[in-house]
Amino acid sequence: MTAAAGTASPVLAPPGAPVVGMVGAGQLARMTAQAAVPLGIGFRVLASAAGESAAQVCAGTVLGDYSSAADLLDFAAGCDVVTFDHEHVPQQALRELERAGVAIRPAAAPLRYAQDKRRMRERLTQLGVPCPPWAPAPGQAEVAAFAGRHNWPVVLKAVSGGYDGKGVWFCAGPDDAARVLAHGLDLIVEEHVPIVAELAAVVARSYSGQGAAYPVVRTVQADGICREVIAPAPGLPPDEAAAAQRLALRIAADLGVTGILAVELFRTERGLVVNELAMRPHNSAHWSIEGAVTSQFEQHLRAVLNLPLGAPELAVPHAVMVNVLGGGEPGLHDRLLHVMAGDPGVKVHLYGKQVRPGRKIGHVTVTGCDLPRLRGRAARAASYLSFGAERPAGRA
Amino acid sequence: MTAAAGTASPVLAPPGAPVVGMVGAGQLARMTAQAAVPLGIGFRVLASAAGESAAQVCAGTVLGDYSSAADLLDFAAGCDVVTFDHEHVPQQALRELERAGVAIRPAAAPLRYAQDKRRMRERLTQLGVPCPPWAPAPGQAEVAAFAGRHNWPVVLKAVSGGYDGKGVWFCAGPDDAARVLAHGLDLIVEEHVPIVAELAAVVARSYSGQGAAYPVVRTVQADGICREVIAPAPGLPPDEAAAAQRLALRIAADLGVTGILAVELFRTERGLVVNELAMRPHNSAHWSIEGAVTSQFEQHLRAVLNLPLGAPELAVPHAVMVNVLGGGEPGLHDRLLHVMAGDPGVKVHLYGKQVRPGRKIGHVTVTGCDLPRLRGRAARAASYLSFGAERPAGRA
Repeated sequence: MTAAAGTASPVLAPPGAPVVGMVGAGQLARMTAQAAVPLGIGFRVLASAAGESAAQVCAGTVLGDYSSAADLLDFAAGCDVVTFDHEHVPQQALRELERAGVAIRPAAAPLRYAQDKRRMRERLTQLGVPCPPWAPAPGQAEVAAFAGRHNWPVVLKAVSGGYDGKGVWFCAGPDDAARVLAHGLDLIVEEHVPIVAELAAVVARSYSGQGAAYPVVRTVQADGICREVIAPAPGLPPDEAAAAQRLALRIAADLGVTGILAVELFRTERGLVVNELAMRPHNSAHWSIEGAVTSQFEQHLRAVLNLPLGAPELAVPHAVMVNVLGGGEPGLHDRLLHVMAGDPGVKVHLYGKQVRPGRKIGHVTVTGCDLPRLRGRAARAASYLSFGAERPAGRA
Repeated sequence: MTAAAGTASPVLAPPGAPVVGMVGAGQLARMTAQAAVPLGIGFRVLASAAGESAAQVCAGTVLGDYSSAADLLDFAAGCDVVTFDHEHVPQQALRELERAGVAIRPAAAPLRYAQDKRRMRERLTQLGVPCPPWAPAPGQAEVAAFAGRHNWPVVLKAVSGGYDGKGVWFCAGPDDAARVLAHGLDLIVEEHVPIVAELAAVVARSYSGQGAAYPVVRTVQADGICREVIAPAPGLPPDEAAAAQRLALRIAADLGVTGILAVELFRTERGLVVNELAMRPHNSAHWSIEGAVTSQFEQHLRAVLNLPLGAPELAVPHAVMVNVLGGGEPGLHDRLLHVMAGDPGVKVHLYGKQVRPGRKIGHVTVTGCDLPRLRGRAARAASYLSFGAERPAGRA
């Protein structure tokens, strides 16, 4: 008896089927690996370590450094198309892959806008896409001048490297701004926009330009981390939802995105403004695994393989997703048992991650008709997975 | 850069999560591997060759011989629970695993009834479960005597080793029976029951005895192979559906099954009779991936891990599944593109198998409200995947 996994070139798909490689092995790659199975294609991930989320479940795992052009080229040699679980591959390495003829999707040019918030704001402004008022923020004087025009508080954002609220600072006044500026990061400053609701418009664009728009969802954040997603967004007038979908499709086309594009939006008294872009499967569309005809993960694979896109419509009346954050205790499997016993209809997605307080370790989704009840069920299941029967301090 | 898959003990799950091992690496193991991902558990398959359906997608693939007790014991050493993709593991090997303290689910005793049609008929008859009239068929005289009591035609069945219509012979008269008897197999003879419809009642039973029943479905066979499954079974009176579910739950409990039990039923003028049993995920419940709150694959994992069972209810009004059989041509991926373009709502499941005429290489599922339209869409997609634009001779 031998470990099949030990063979140098594992068989990932029958002859004639394409192989997709995903750089990065987090939960997005893990869920994309799951979506690759029914398509009969080959799927590889480039992981930094064997224990990473997607590496645990993917037969085509390769270990390497995502910032090394050499490792990326080696990885790409076994793939027909290369795509990404995160935005952290340096532009220089992306350009080197392109020069070597690797089909990277999305390409280096659009990815730059997901990697660099200043270029993203410049480009969206050029395109006439509504954004919060913003400016480069090289120093205290420029921030003070911006606040003079737009009033305090303002928001400072790191141009690159931020995620899940990291790299974003709310500044009530000049002292707050000075503390952020002291980090020496490349920053932009934005108006602190009064928000009616946070929304996300997730779309897919295939390599040959076909587009598909998911229903616009409401996202609920706490401490800069997405906690809950409600599909479709409750109380959003149909014309505003359609406008958000059109806007996201237009951005995808104008930037030349291939794959999933998530457009995070603020709904304000003055209309919709774009907050952030992500060019990969996104937390705001995890609900689509159970709630849409085609999940965002399958859709991303179809888009990067230039297959016709799947129907993005809701398959259910409502879907609610709540993220599971790590609590103080490991022992997730024991708590899973109780969640399953308490609600046989809740769909749990665990990412295989070590539990650390505040870390996204999974999500739960419930679907059905009665939205307030669905929100309660999803919140209870997620809270139990995080904390067990004990409620954390400060939670109702 | 190194192949992570080359490590001797790949990390399949975080500490504390159980590992399920499935013996066999066909499409059932492939779809179970997919269902294991969100549960955050470890999953291994014992494959005969690296290119097998589940081996292509499962990080925890081990190569070995499912009929060798030594290979099975080695495999089981890395698993908390061992379950099965097929019924072909010899009883002697199963008993050896049990003596060694391996948690095999279902256990050797109930599996015997899925491996031996004569013992299955004896046991179901003892339990008062309605079956077609049957008798052992050691020779021509016994078959003739049976036909004297029940009339020709009769059905001869191999006691073991049959599947997908193999091992089942329709015999119009003594000459047909003589030809089958000449094979020298261990046989039983059954009345050729006049069938109103073929149904399947699929249930799950957890290790501690919790039961869950899927909606009863109609199965449509051709040449002994299941072609189409309609959920729920159209035109089946609710009391008859409930009776079929109760019957299947009773059989699962009486035989001590752990995991999925599929009960294939004939609906006749005289009521329901049991045709076959399978103690594993079953073709008649593939629709549950999209159509039920909990798929049969997740349910099987919950049952064998003794986790609380998930809701088996329909998540949609109707689901139709049609099997994709191999046509004359390979090039499945090229045809997939056209199927996706023609119907963005069809869900395709390819098994990663080499195309051979008549071989089950995948299935398609569609869900929605308009049943006649769903049946047409599913049939068209499956036919196109098999044959492309050319219709095979003899098909409308």
